[in-house]
Amino acid sequence: MAKPRFRELRRSFGFDEVAIVPGDVTINPDQTNIELKIDDFTFALPILASAMDAVVDVKTAVILSKLGGLAVLNLEGVQTRYDNPEEVLADIARAPVAEVTAKLQKVYSAPIKEKLVAERIEAIKKAGTTCAVSVTPANTKRLAPIIAEAKADILAVQSTVTTAKHVSKSYRGLIFTELQKSVPMPVIVGNCVSYSACLDIMKTGISAVLVGVGPGAACTTRQVLGVGVPQITATMDCAAARDEYQRQSGRYVPIITDGGFRNGGDLCKAFAAGADAVMLGSILAQAKEAPGLGYHWGMSHPHPALPRGTRIKVGTTGTMEQILFGPTSVTDGSQNLIGALRTAMGVCGARNIKEMQKAEMVIAPAITTEGKSWQMTQASP
Amino acid sequence: MAKPRFRELRRSFGFDEVAIVPGDVTINPDQTNIELKIDDFTFALPILASAMDAVVDVKTAVILSKLGGLAVLNLEGVQTRYDNPEEVLADIARAPVAEVTAKLQKVYSAPIKEKLVAERIEAIKKAGTTCAVSVTPANTKRLAPIIAEAKADILAVQSTVTTAKHVSKSYRGLIFTELQKSVPMPVIVGNCVSYSACLDIMKTGISAVLVGVGPGAACTTRQVLGVGVPQITATMDCAAARDEYQRQSGRYVPIITDGGFRNGGDLCKAFAAGADAVMLGSILAQAKEAPGLGYHWGMSHPHPALPRGTRIKVGTTGTMEQILFGPTSVTDGSQNLIGALRTAMGVCGARNIKEMQKAEMVIAPAITTEGKSWQMTQASP
Amino acid sequence: MAKPRFRELRRSFGFDEVAIVPGDVTINPDQTNIELKIDDFTFALPILASAMDAVVDVKTAVILSKLGGLAVLNLEGVQTRYDNPEEVLADIARAPVAEVTAKLQKVYSAPIKEKLVAERIEAIKKAGTTCAVSVTPANTKRLAPIIAEAKADILAVQSTVTTAKHVSKSYRGLIFTELQKSVPMPVIVGNCVSYSACLDIMKTGISAVLVGVGPGAACTTRQVLGVGVPQITATMDCAAARDEYQRQSGRYVPIITDGGFRNGGDLCKAFAAGADAVMLGSILAQAKEAPGLGYHWGMSHPHPALPRGTRIKVGTTGTMEQILFGPTSVTDGSQNLIGALRTAMGVCGARNIKEMQKAEMVIAPAITTEGKSWQMTQASP
Amino acid sequence: MAKPRFRELRRSFGFDEVAIVPGDVTINPDQTNIELKIDDFTFALPILASAMDAVVDVKTAVILSKLGGLAVLNLEGVQTRYDNPEEVLADIARAPVAEVTAKLQKVYSAPIKEKLVAERIEAIKKAGTTCAVSVTPANTKRLAPIIAEAKADILAVQSTVTTAKHVSKSYRGLIFTELQKSVPMPVIVGNCVSYSACLDIMKTGISAVLVGVGPGAACTTRQVLGVGVPQITATMDCAAARDEYQRQSGRYVPIITDGGFRNGGDLCKAFAAGADAVMLGSILAQAKEAPGLGYHWGMSHPHPALPRGTRIKVGTTGTMEQILFGPTSVTDGSQNLIGALRTAMGVCGARNIKEMQKAEMVIAPAITTEGKSWQMTQASP
Repeated sequence: MAKPRFRELRRSFGFDEVAIVPGDVTINPDQTNIELKIDDFTFALPILASAMDAVVDVKTAVILSKLGGLAVLNLEGVQTRYDNPEEVLADIARAPVAEVTAKLQKVYSAPIKEKLVAERIEAIKKAGTTCAVSVTPANTKRLAPIIAEAKADILAVQSTVTTAKHVSKSYRGLIFTELQKSVPMPVIVGNCVSYSACLDIMKTGISAVLVGVGPGAACTTRQVLGVGVPQITATMDCAAARDEYQRQSGRYVPIITDGGFRNGGDLCKAFAAGADAVMLGSILAQAKEAPGLGYHWGMSHPHPALPRGTRIKVGTTGTMEQILFGPTSVTDGSQNLIGALRTAMGVCGARNIKEMQKAEMVIAPAITTEGKSWQMTQASP
Repeated sequence: MAKPRFRELRRSFGFDEVAIVPGDVTINPDQTNIELKIDDFTFALPILASAMDAVVDVKTAVILSKLGGLAVLNLEGVQTRYDNPEEVLADIARAPVAEVTAKLQKVYSAPIKEKLVAERIEAIKKAGTTCAVSVTPANTKRLAPIIAEAKADILAVQSTVTTAKHVSKSYRGLIFTELQKSVPMPVIVGNCVSYSACLDIMKTGISAVLVGVGPGAACTTRQVLGVGVPQITATMDCAAARDEYQRQSGRYVPIITDGGFRNGGDLCKAFAAGADAVMLGSILAQAKEAPGLGYHWGMSHPHPALPRGTRIKVGTTGTMEQILFGPTSVTDGSQNLIGALRTAMGVCGARNIKEMQKAEMVIAPAITTEGKSWQMTQASP
Repeated sequence: MAKPRFRELRRSFGFDEVAIVPGDVTINPDQTNIELKIDDFTFALPILASAMDAVVDVKTAVILSKLGGLAVLNLEGVQTRYDNPEEVLADIARAPVAEVTAKLQKVYSAPIKEKLVAERIEAIKKAGTTCAVSVTPANTKRLAPIIAEAKADILAVQSTVTTAKHVSKSYRGLIFTELQKSVPMPVIVGNCVSYSACLDIMKTGISAVLVGVGPGAACTTRQVLGVGVPQITATMDCAAARDEYQRQSGRYVPIITDGGFRNGGDLCKAFAAGADAVMLGSILAQAKEAPGLGYHWGMSHPHPALPRGTRIKVGTTGTMEQILFGPTSVTDGSQNLIGALRTAMGVCGARNIKEMQKAEMVIAPAITTEGKSWQMTQASP
Repeated sequence: MAKPRFRELRRSFGFDEVAIVPGDVTINPDQTNIELKIDDFTFALPILASAMDAVVDVKTAVILSKLGGLAVLNLEGVQTRYDNPEEVLADIARAPVAEVTAKLQKVYSAPIKEKLVAERIEAIKKAGTTCAVSVTPANTKRLAPIIAEAKADILAVQSTVTTAKHVSKSYRGLIFTELQKSVPMPVIVGNCVSYSACLDIMKTGISAVLVGVGPGAACTTRQVLGVGVPQITATMDCAAARDEYQRQSGRYVPIITDGGFRNGGDLCKAFAAGADAVMLGSILAQAKEAPGLGYHWGMSHPHPALPRGTRIKVGTTGTMEQILFGPTSVTDGSQNLIGALRTAMGVCGARNIKEMQKAEMVIAPAITTEGKSWQMTQASP
């Protein structure tokens, strides 16, 4: 009997399994440039806030924009289903663990009010800040005209997995080439994780791609569906697609690593893996200004038949400014993310994000509490 | 001294170590076809219930059949040893931990009554549903005529490890080619885990193969014997054997991944690894209708000299219909398994099980509670 | 700058990381032959008991011999330092954890009495059983004549790491070729873990080799010295040396995997890795007849300056006969080791140990409690 | 579409993942020579104490020197900022966990007094012992003349990551070629972790290199910045750079593995990976004489904007002499480090450190408490 050809599987990597290798030249952190460009927009920080109800509302969108980043408002959440989202959010925070999924399923079954879609966008624009909003593919055709009329600046079309081609019996799939032509703003599409899916999406002409399926702190997609690619590999593969697309087309489409970040170390690794920006959820849900009141939950959590997510208690640790810029007395990497990024770029000798994308990384075992056992006995005298 | 040739070992993978990569095209979950065919039988769902006393009795066999799947009744367990199996099952559930193995050893030392074999089959047939039953190789010759006369539809011949050739001093080994010719029904044989053993079994002419040695939740075969192959690798290798056998013979023999499933994610991964169907034990033991009353134990647990298994408390979480179809407010993947499978197929762009078998997988680190540390602090306010 | 040649390290494997693949043919367990031959001695079981004070005394040596195995008596422990070893052993068992290492250091600083060396051997011989004894290289020249005169059958010369060549300023190293010629009995030498060291030892003409550095349950050599090779790799490499030596010399020198076994699964894997026999410590320390009274400690534990070991509580679980042959109601693989070995050989189709050494193994992730999470909730009703 | 070229990552290793393979020849531990040479200085022990405030003050510098090693005094810590460092250290030890980082940030914001720099060096010299001191690159130009005038013997220039070339807007980077010429003493530079960075530093003419970024027990650089290379790989790569540099230049520049050691096993592995010496922090912070009073913290812990470290409680276990030479009743490898090193060299047949650097290592799974489960039940009767 001839030896069979066994199917081979490729190894993938998450944040915990890699580490950045310092460079042969170092530079002062204040010499680093971390700007992000999406079409004609330039942001001082390569930081987006997730389109999640616990992370972004009108108020936080304005704050983050003033700090240099970009918040994305979820147009299919409590902000557009309720006139009084604060009360609904407080209700969610108060719900006992055993009832919270049912509660979320109920809250998210209320209809989206088109009037509120326009109102929320206008409120953000009124503050003079860049306004980005997010919709799912199924609602894009209906809501895009309202979004355009309310003069949002950037449109994200986002679902767990989005591809350039979707087959459906019940509705004609969203064609991104058509969408990008029909709206006057840059379109960000996501989420995807593979080279080929990312390349296909870029070829539709859209302006940026969100990378990440299943990594978020509030997400249980991998347990429920078995689907997901760890973020370092997803980012490396989509970065390869971006570079290939640029070779083919001359056009540079930034990729935004979305989800799974727990600290500055993870964020620095995403850039070393090839990200142009990062989208933060649970870390920003810890901000004092966050609408989730110390809680966080995923966008697929409220699914009526197949909920995939958990409400997690993230606590409230500091203002959004402190989380991004410090100063801080916290030593676990959850605050001063921008300081951490600039310092990591400094030790890698990277003057800008493009250079940081070329930093060497190694596969390194996760640091466990067992490995650093004394930390377990950290105690006051 | 010449450098020695060190023996090389091949890496194998279990459910926890792989993840499914979404496809380049997505389809709506309601566009997916998940039918299973075994010879002339077609089942709406690719789901079998394990021939274990805590999972299948006459009542659950009828329920699962009506839902579209196939239950396999163990003909060498309490159902055929006792006129009053419910009482015996309640006794097992009530036994203290320290006494349960001895209790099981005693319960399963009662003789199999041929009269009950016929009665159980007839009860299932009477409900108008497909009846599948399971025997061990050693008892097959004795029980096969009774099974055929009672008109069971499908016969499973199953032991921890079954091969096409068994060497024994005390009795002439069961020859599957002869068995398949002597009974008027499809024969399913198992369990096996390797390419060559699976190919040998298929060549005997039987109708389906069960894949899995040692993975079940209630099974301690790997601790006791050191024997077992993790399910993803076992499924991939046996799928390769199935495809090779089809090339050689033109005949398609489905493989059924049996054991080790904890959630929808595991189930989806089995199909992506090449399974045509899955056989569920502990997940279905959680059904309200399950005969185990919230407990589960393995078929090799009661062995008088070398018990390999544990009684585990799985609890009771919902009806069999909820476990298979939802709706649910559980977010850990233990309910709405069919919804999970169709959704995973959707994000992989797989219109049927054959296409799902070609979905890409990557080796991905297990998601640990440490990795998603906030989940540890999930709490009510 | 030219790319440097990075140093490559080879991957090694312990019991937890491999699993045995069932064969393409199965045989009945009662068809298996598990005999062990060391020179002209033939043992019904391929089982040795470790030369450790908690495992072997005169009484257990006789019991194990009658059951078919071979116990090795430590001639440098309490049995030869004290006229009343039972009292000393009881003292050790009673010592509080914080004082036990100091206690052992004191106990083992008493001198070895040559009179007791002879008496212990004669007591074992008087029972009509094969007598094997163990000494360290440093004491071999002094004690070998006494051992020969007392007519011990087999001599083990054993230290943490033993090589064919030892360099010392203070004494002339032990030359095994000379030793083997000077004593009238087979000499077993150990411990070693590498291909080349094992081959060198075999070339000295000795009769068997002990394999294993650092794996034992009571051993902390890897923490203290960083030295040790996991047992599967050590056994595979030394088996390769044995086969190479047989090719060169025509002589077959069995290898005995020594230490680290926790259950029948580990034992079966050692044979599949190439062992001719196994030497058990902590498993046999659990026997009702064991001199350690439910405790176990290593031979390098009492070192006055650099103790490497811990006293561990193993408990008392059954008679030596039950541990080896069952029957049992224990399902964790710690009892009926011979039944487990024969069953594993059966599913691998191995008629004897030489065939079992060729069983296929795969690298398989350890089974964790997390992986089988329900076992954590195993509970009485 | 052509198959993309996926980016490949190299695997790196920490202490926990490797083990030393015994040699084919063994030698008596007392035959081993473990001397360290840095330029014209020869030390009996290849042991340095970290330039950390919890580890080295004037008193411990003198003690370690007398024992044969070399302590490095941090010239930018409490010793040179305060006339009464003992009181400040006691304050730090007494601070509650929640306030300790803020406390450290405050303590380390006091100015460095040049008068104290000279006084501390003179106090060490007065005892007749070799005096090594440490400064950061930014303060080197200012402090180097004072250090030289006070007649320190060895100067370490040290920061988290130090390279031969640093780009800064605000000050002209430190040029090591100039520094080495301008001071009359050997210069040690660190820390680095990669082949090329290490080679570049050696080419500047300095006398020794410190290896290690992120591994220390008190260090959270990997969480905060994502930067760090596990110590075995870092040591192997820098050892390759040292050997390459010697081939090119004829000059031998020793490398000192700095940080992450928890026991003798780790220390032995560093030498087997290629180290010429090791620098110990948390292990020596456990000494009775240590200034940290049973606590330990990192040099980047007090950073005002981005603190990276934790104060850990290491406890007080024995005198510095016991930690280095025993005797001991501790079996976890934390005492008698020199005995452990000599014993490991003995079983590897290494007569000196250069030979120990060639000892074979294998990748070996970490020893977990799960793997040696009985240790968990270690208990007094």
